[in-house]
Amino acid sequence: MDRFQGKLGIRRGVGPHPVLSSLLYEPGIEQDQAVALPWLLKIDAAHLVMLARSGILPAATVARLLSVHREISARLDKGLPAFEVPAGHRGLYFVYEQHSIERLGGEVGGAAHVARSRNDINAASTRLRLRTHLLAFLDHAAALLDAALGLGEAHAATLMSAFTHMQPAQPATLGHYLAGISAELLRSTERLDAFWEDVNRSPLGAAAGMGTTFPIDRELTASLLGFDAVVDNSLDAVASRDFVVHVLSALAMLGVTLTRLAADLQTWGSNAYGFLSWPDELVSTSSIMPQKRNAFVLENVRGLAVRPTGALAAVLATLKGTPFSNSVEVGTEAVSHLWPAVAGCESAVRLTELMLRGVEVDSERMRDFLARAATTMTALADHLVARHDLPFRSAHEAVARLLQRLSPEEREAPEAILPALREIVEEISGRALPLSREEISRALDPEACAWAAAYGGGPSPEVVREQLARLRGRLGHLAGRQAERRQRLAAADVRLRQAVDEFSGG
Amino acid sequence: MDRFQGKLGIRRGVGPHPVLSSLLYEPGIEQDQAVALPWLLKIDAAHLVMLARSGILPAATVARLLSVHREISARLDKGLPAFEVPAGHRGLYFVYEQHSIERLGGEVGGAAHVARSRNDINAASTRLRLRTHLLAFLDHAAALLDAALGLGEAHAATLMSAFTHMQPAQPATLGHYLAGISAELLRSTERLDAFWEDVNRSPLGAAAGMGTTFPIDRELTASLLGFDAVVDNSLDAVASRDFVVHVLSALAMLGVTLTRLAADLQTWGSNAYGFLSWPDELVSTSSIMPQKRNAFVLENVRGLAVRPTGALAAVLATLKGTPFSNSVEVGTEAVSHLWPAVAGCESAVRLTELMLRGVEVDSERMRDFLARAATTMTALADHLVARHDLPFRSAHEAVARLLQRLSPEEREAPEAILPALREIVEEISGRALPLSREEISRALDPEACAWAAAYGGGPSPEVVREQLARLRGRLGHLAGRQAERRQRLAAADVRLRQAVDEFSGG
Amino acid sequence: MDRFQGKLGIRRGVGPHPVLSSLLYEPGIEQDQAVALPWLLKIDAAHLVMLARSGILPAATVARLLSVHREISARLDKGLPAFEVPAGHRGLYFVYEQHSIERLGGEVGGAAHVARSRNDINAASTRLRLRTHLLAFLDHAAALLDAALGLGEAHAATLMSAFTHMQPAQPATLGHYLAGISAELLRSTERLDAFWEDVNRSPLGAAAGMGTTFPIDRELTASLLGFDAVVDNSLDAVASRDFVVHVLSALAMLGVTLTRLAADLQTWGSNAYGFLSWPDELVSTSSIMPQKRNAFVLENVRGLAVRPTGALAAVLATLKGTPFSNSVEVGTEAVSHLWPAVAGCESAVRLTELMLRGVEVDSERMRDFLARAATTMTALADHLVARHDLPFRSAHEAVARLLQRLSPEEREAPEAILPALREIVEEISGRALPLSREEISRALDPEACAWAAAYGGGPSPEVVREQLARLRGRLGHLAGRQAERRQRLAAADVRLRQAVDEFSGG
Amino acid sequence: MDRFQGKLGIRRGVGPHPVLSSLLYEPGIEQDQAVALPWLLKIDAAHLVMLARSGILPAATVARLLSVHREISARLDKGLPAFEVPAGHRGLYFVYEQHSIERLGGEVGGAAHVARSRNDINAASTRLRLRTHLLAFLDHAAALLDAALGLGEAHAATLMSAFTHMQPAQPATLGHYLAGISAELLRSTERLDAFWEDVNRSPLGAAAGMGTTFPIDRELTASLLGFDAVVDNSLDAVASRDFVVHVLSALAMLGVTLTRLAADLQTWGSNAYGFLSWPDELVSTSSIMPQKRNAFVLENVRGLAVRPTGALAAVLATLKGTPFSNSVEVGTEAVSHLWPAVAGCESAVRLTELMLRGVEVDSERMRDFLARAATTMTALADHLVARHDLPFRSAHEAVARLLQRLSPEEREAPEAILPALREIVEEISGRALPLSREEISRALDPEACAWAAAYGGGPSPEVVREQLARLRGRLGHLAGRQAERRQRLAAADVRLRQAVDEFSGG
Repeated sequence: MDRFQGKLGIRRGVGPHPVLSSLLYEPGIEQDQAVALPWLLKIDAAHLVMLARSGILPAATVARLLSVHREISARLDKGLPAFEVPAGHRGLYFVYEQHSIERLGGEVGGAAHVARSRNDINAASTRLRLRTHLLAFLDHAAALLDAALGLGEAHAATLMSAFTHMQPAQPATLGHYLAGISAELLRSTERLDAFWEDVNRSPLGAAAGMGTTFPIDRELTASLLGFDAVVDNSLDAVASRDFVVHVLSALAMLGVTLTRLAADLQTWGSNAYGFLSWPDELVSTSSIMPQKRNAFVLENVRGLAVRPTGALAAVLATLKGTPFSNSVEVGTEAVSHLWPAVAGCESAVRLTELMLRGVEVDSERMRDFLARAATTMTALADHLVARHDLPFRSAHEAVARLLQRLSPEEREAPEAILPALREIVEEISGRALPLSREEISRALDPEACAWAAAYGGGPSPEVVREQLARLRGRLGHLAGRQAERRQRLAAADVRLRQAVDEFSGG
Repeated sequence: MDRFQGKLGIRRGVGPHPVLSSLLYEPGIEQDQAVALPWLLKIDAAHLVMLARSGILPAATVARLLSVHREISARLDKGLPAFEVPAGHRGLYFVYEQHSIERLGGEVGGAAHVARSRNDINAASTRLRLRTHLLAFLDHAAALLDAALGLGEAHAATLMSAFTHMQPAQPATLGHYLAGISAELLRSTERLDAFWEDVNRSPLGAAAGMGTTFPIDRELTASLLGFDAVVDNSLDAVASRDFVVHVLSALAMLGVTLTRLAADLQTWGSNAYGFLSWPDELVSTSSIMPQKRNAFVLENVRGLAVRPTGALAAVLATLKGTPFSNSVEVGTEAVSHLWPAVAGCESAVRLTELMLRGVEVDSERMRDFLARAATTMTALADHLVARHDLPFRSAHEAVARLLQRLSPEEREAPEAILPALREIVEEISGRALPLSREEISRALDPEACAWAAAYGGGPSPEVVREQLARLRGRLGHLAGRQAERRQRLAAADVRLRQAVDEFSGG
Repeated sequence: MDRFQGKLGIRRGVGPHPVLSSLLYEPGIEQDQAVALPWLLKIDAAHLVMLARSGILPAATVARLLSVHREISARLDKGLPAFEVPAGHRGLYFVYEQHSIERLGGEVGGAAHVARSRNDINAASTRLRLRTHLLAFLDHAAALLDAALGLGEAHAATLMSAFTHMQPAQPATLGHYLAGISAELLRSTERLDAFWEDVNRSPLGAAAGMGTTFPIDRELTASLLGFDAVVDNSLDAVASRDFVVHVLSALAMLGVTLTRLAADLQTWGSNAYGFLSWPDELVSTSSIMPQKRNAFVLENVRGLAVRPTGALAAVLATLKGTPFSNSVEVGTEAVSHLWPAVAGCESAVRLTELMLRGVEVDSERMRDFLARAATTMTALADHLVARHDLPFRSAHEAVARLLQRLSPEEREAPEAILPALREIVEEISGRALPLSREEISRALDPEACAWAAAYGGGPSPEVVREQLARLRGRLGHLAGRQAERRQRLAAADVRLRQAVDEFSGG
Repeated sequence: MDRFQGKLGIRRGVGPHPVLSSLLYEPGIEQDQAVALPWLLKIDAAHLVMLARSGILPAATVARLLSVHREISARLDKGLPAFEVPAGHRGLYFVYEQHSIERLGGEVGGAAHVARSRNDINAASTRLRLRTHLLAFLDHAAALLDAALGLGEAHAATLMSAFTHMQPAQPATLGHYLAGISAELLRSTERLDAFWEDVNRSPLGAAAGMGTTFPIDRELTASLLGFDAVVDNSLDAVASRDFVVHVLSALAMLGVTLTRLAADLQTWGSNAYGFLSWPDELVSTSSIMPQKRNAFVLENVRGLAVRPTGALAAVLATLKGTPFSNSVEVGTEAVSHLWPAVAGCESAVRLTELMLRGVEVDSERMRDFLARAATTMTALADHLVARHDLPFRSAHEAVARLLQRLSPEEREAPEAILPALREIVEEISGRALPLSREEISRALDPEACAWAAAYGGGPSPEVVREQLARLRGRLGHLAGRQAERRQRLAAADVRLRQAVDEFSGG
């Protein structure tokens, strides 16, 4: 009979200094019981099954160790605390192992911790947790893209001024804008999607970074946990957290695109533009200004979407200059910035989707704005080039002079433009311009102009619809990969459950 | 005859305010003539060839426009300035077009700027320039990895203490360390490599973001410039710079791994460790301390490698909240952070390679250190588990008590360990321990211990050699992709040159 | 009788969209009830007292409104929730005002919200909360500095090698190191201390940024809340959060200094150096390596101390490009990064203090290291300059050659050095060198060397003690300012309580 | 005669590796000759004068050493290179000392480098250079504030809608906005101003961080260079660069405020608002859109102003985890981020000043906008509270219902409002409302409303003028401090020149 009675993680009977307990261990374990414990149990189960199958531990020992899981799960299901947390403890793992020893005695309870360490468990837990968030995030991103593409499809032919430098530029469509910005969002989403394979690798078996002399089967552990592969080198397995940086990078870029979208929505939804509005359930009023309908959600979006940017700076600075080995700085401190950033960015994605699905587009006001904004002047110059063989620079100059000579009202009247333009072209190019009023009317028509911009990826509705269809296609592939992942993870869950049942039953 | 005489980019004869000239245009154009002009000429040539082939401009016009390129190239070859820069100008593009008009007259010189704008030219120039840097960077990263893997191969069996929390942990090898950190470096390199396809897309034809009504062939332009594809949506083409962020992210992570490597090299090269040293040509002395041999290059590495981290923060903050359209903030200001970061990180990579190729490893000192650092205590505990059926926690406790009872000298002596350990195991587990002195000697031998750590990706030399071989394999794939890219770019250069010759010859 | 029955913050009976409730309002209010409600009550009390004294509301109305505070406080004291939170609410303020209306009827309960808005309340709440953290933080920073200076005083004459580029440089003392790094810590602390006056200003009365037409007395409100002054311009009061950036900047710098200190402590505490160690209660062992004594707390310090760096990047990026007016992006999202950064940095400060107070210095090992590290070679060269009139460069060269010619053992033996050095000086300078063995012995003695370095702020113990005394003096001033602040805040609390009692009593 | 012929910084005849030369030394020295050399000469002169006055070097030696300065200055004045840079060198300082030795022989040329090292020289050079930039920057910031306050004074009574959440809020004035944002700009400027005393301290005499045994007078050196004080501890002098972080922090905040100002100017200058415009010399046209008038300078401002944010992230990450001692990582790499950030932010300040001085305000359009934006609804509610004793919440609800019942046209017509409002108030409060049409007209008049907002720091012109005057007062104090600094620096220059002349003359 084993008479081991040490308190785990305690040297020579000396527990942690009270300040350490109050600043590190106590705040840590609350979080850990809520969030990390379920992952720990899952990892433990897979490890125990593997140890038994590899002949490292007897099946009976494993069966008894697994019985503690069942007890803990039962307690959690009833809303009870998993186990008592003794004062002066050294963190979740030791508390958990201590609990096993108390329940089962040292002979059995103290047998599980072979061929592993808290280091590879911690790395595995981070990966499992991030994997879960990633899977959900990709679904939300896909839903946002679905909303954006849907809105783009509905407004592929909704005329709107394009802007550069915040000034009206040329006629375009709302659908063209949405296809453009969706492309950037989709690229970041696909980046994130590509990082899945980096995240979903098992570090288990690496122990403290130097592997083990026990003949473990780490592929089995990985397979029971739904990992796609193992991390080859044991030091890499516990020392690296590059996947955290890669994921945050893609989120940061995706988030920044959301801030750009939100900024445009804010501008176009502002009173002076009036292109967009939202129903009451998506705006707020003021506590003192009764007329207010604030699209404040876009401000939350802008703020939340920046979270990965801040987290990225924090993680990179934390990783910088650390030894390449397991360390608290890397595995705990750096990683702590990940979760609020992922959650914040997910909220930004969901709120943006909500605002796109709920937006009301005032296409009449967009068309009126266009009519008064001289956005077809490039088209007029292009017409002089294409049909009247002027060199572009002369045509551009001619239109520029035209704008100087005519009043704002005259600029919209072909009968005022015709003689003035003839005169100017004669001045610049020495040519008589055989231009008709009908040509001018056509050149100045924003709709005709946008419809003709069918080259170079422009806003012509047919072109935009093709762009949107291609984006939809890529979105479909993403959905396919997500479905496959879910299927693989479910299959692994079944394998693990069956294996556990097999041992517990024996 | 065209009598166009306007000064390009100048409205109503009013040039830019002198402060704008001195703060923006003048500093900008110096840079641009040195760096951007060659790209502009290349883009211009491809655009002109496409315009002629598409029937948008007459072949004769294009031939004359291309002749100006030849003149400018000839001047540059002689070390002469490309052309005169007039006071009060509005940036490189306008100066260049003005120069063409002055050389060829408005009828021809003013004809080139159809179906494009400065916006898509700027985006294309950034992509071409970054593509060139990326190609070179990937070669340097591959060379660094070759050095690291080579060093790892040479030291796959060089015994060394592994460290966690900067304290000696378990016996390992230098090769194991290098295989581990190389894996992280390679992943970032592969990320970067994967971004090539994002970077190498043509935005040309997008003009100011709304495409064009001229029936251009943008696939032809892209092909002449060696782009792999076009950017589908014209707004995306001029408004997005996500590839800048993606590239910087991969560089930032790669850079941070370099700081971790440098930190370890500094520690192990410090006098108190003495594991590593470098020859005189790689260290510096002090201006006042004659005994000094400073591995200062590692400090440059740490500093330079952090540049992408700073640039990433700068670019993300610059992009944040900008309208999704062409803007100076995005296309000029944000992008300006890219170049020094890429160059700095490239230097960090090259300097690290140099330090790895030049390092002198004192394997004797590493072995001596190991002998005095009690790093085989885990192995001793594992032995009690594997051969004597103790539960791990009891074995761990037994060795912990052993360390408390013995003096540092006794800890290395099997004859002192044997009786003490028997006594302790009896205390803890109530068992007589049939352990021999030979078993203890073997368990305490760092070499045997490292060699046995063949599971979970551990330091056993055979395992390490396999890890290194797999990394080499992936490095080979990277080299293959690089060779293919170079071949494709060379072929595009030939196509463009032939097309230019064809028109110029006619 | 007032029959107002609207639900606050709800337009036309339409509540917030369920997604807004679940992502924004519901998570927000949990936090707000725990953290923001006490500040809201305090702000409300001061505002009500002021409204009554200014004649804007009748004393009786104010008395009844204040009675709700008493009820809420009583509930909170009993651990009960302050009030019921209805589904579909619009945030804490509206819930609170609704509660008042329900308790007191619209005539009284709806009367409080004059001459204010949620905007100035939010700004005031942030400032009050930050003020409290700042006060505590400055005390912890002072305690850390007290520990560092105390350790420095105890080791003002404890010999230790100084390092540059991680190589032994010249003899110094541990006290000298601590005086140096304490100076940097103290400067950041003083910066933070200087930001107090920025933080402790009242924005109340600014309402939504456009002030009010009610003849309020905002100096009175400020005084009742312990603010030192008001924010002059009402837009500035609600739109600016520069104090958040300033505070985080000082914390970021202070934190970075902590990472530098921690890095040095890690190095010197590592096994190969062995200069420093910590008792069991401040180190951890490993779950698998029984010999381990990890100073892991220093890794927590390094990670926690970087939090303000990440928060700073996040806040600056969030503020960037926002309209200068009240916005959720600025007042809620940007500010949200502040609290975990302040708390994390405070933990880093406290943990560093703990590690400094608990450190065990092995001065013998430091002295041994010094003896073998050739750190007095500069002193030998300086001696040749000072006493034998060699130009420094020749003296430096002479010692450099000496090091090349002698074996490591000979370098410590005056009898080997003397003839060699004479020969070398003759070579270089053509002079006979009248140097004695005694001079060499003295020049090579680390202690004599450190003691003589009394100029330029060097490690001579007397000099170090003076430096430490000056730092202590500045620390005393800081303590004085803190005491004054506490006294002023306590006096304000008394004023507010008395005023409340006066009205409630009436 | 001294026959020292070593090549400085070269050990045992082995120069730096060619890769080090090409990546570090060669690029470095170009920069250094242009920028660092003048500071080096100045520092050297002060050091030499001090060495002579302290009796450490003979006056004659110092005189000859100073003569090399005169030669170098003469060469620089003629546009010649200061001296030849040998291949395989080790950086500016060694090249310079080598040059002195070649010109003067080792006896004299090799004598200068006592009681100093490259470390304290480098720290001093950074401080002198930053001091110069800081002085200029503060002048530019003061000029910007002068422009902003001037514009505010001119428009203290120019009516404009205030916005929150980008929606029209309440009537205000342009002057009120400018007073508000100027307050934030001024606070950051004052922070920067307060850092002067940190920057302007002399690290000279610290040598490599351990001071010196030579009896130097470092206060004299400091005084000759215009430093206000010395850095007390020699390690602090060479190891710390916190002043870099503090300066960048203030710049980052100031820059972020500039992005907020620029964002508002962009919005109000956009076609849909039309509140602001700029003359031709401050806008650009498009290369293809002849109608364009782009306020692109505001995009440069937003981009340039963010540079300190990026630099701050870079510097903090670079400093993180470095040993507290002299290092290349700290003294060279971290500091390298400072200069482009200071220059970029200075440009942003100057460009903003230009845009404020050049802006054309369309006050009629601002007034028209206000008339259609229902911004006086809060005023109407306030009126019901102040004159008709409604509780605020009921008044707010009444106006909210009014807005729902009336058409946009009716909302501006007192005769439509009067009966509706009476009815609603009756519904809500059960009171008859004795309100007159005149009261409604007055309450709805934006001008009356803004003028009445005289409390809480609101936009009433008198209040705004007082705010502006107080800001002017603080700006005056800043100017006074700047003048004092210039005077002190000029006096130091005279002292140094006289001292040099005195020795050279001898």
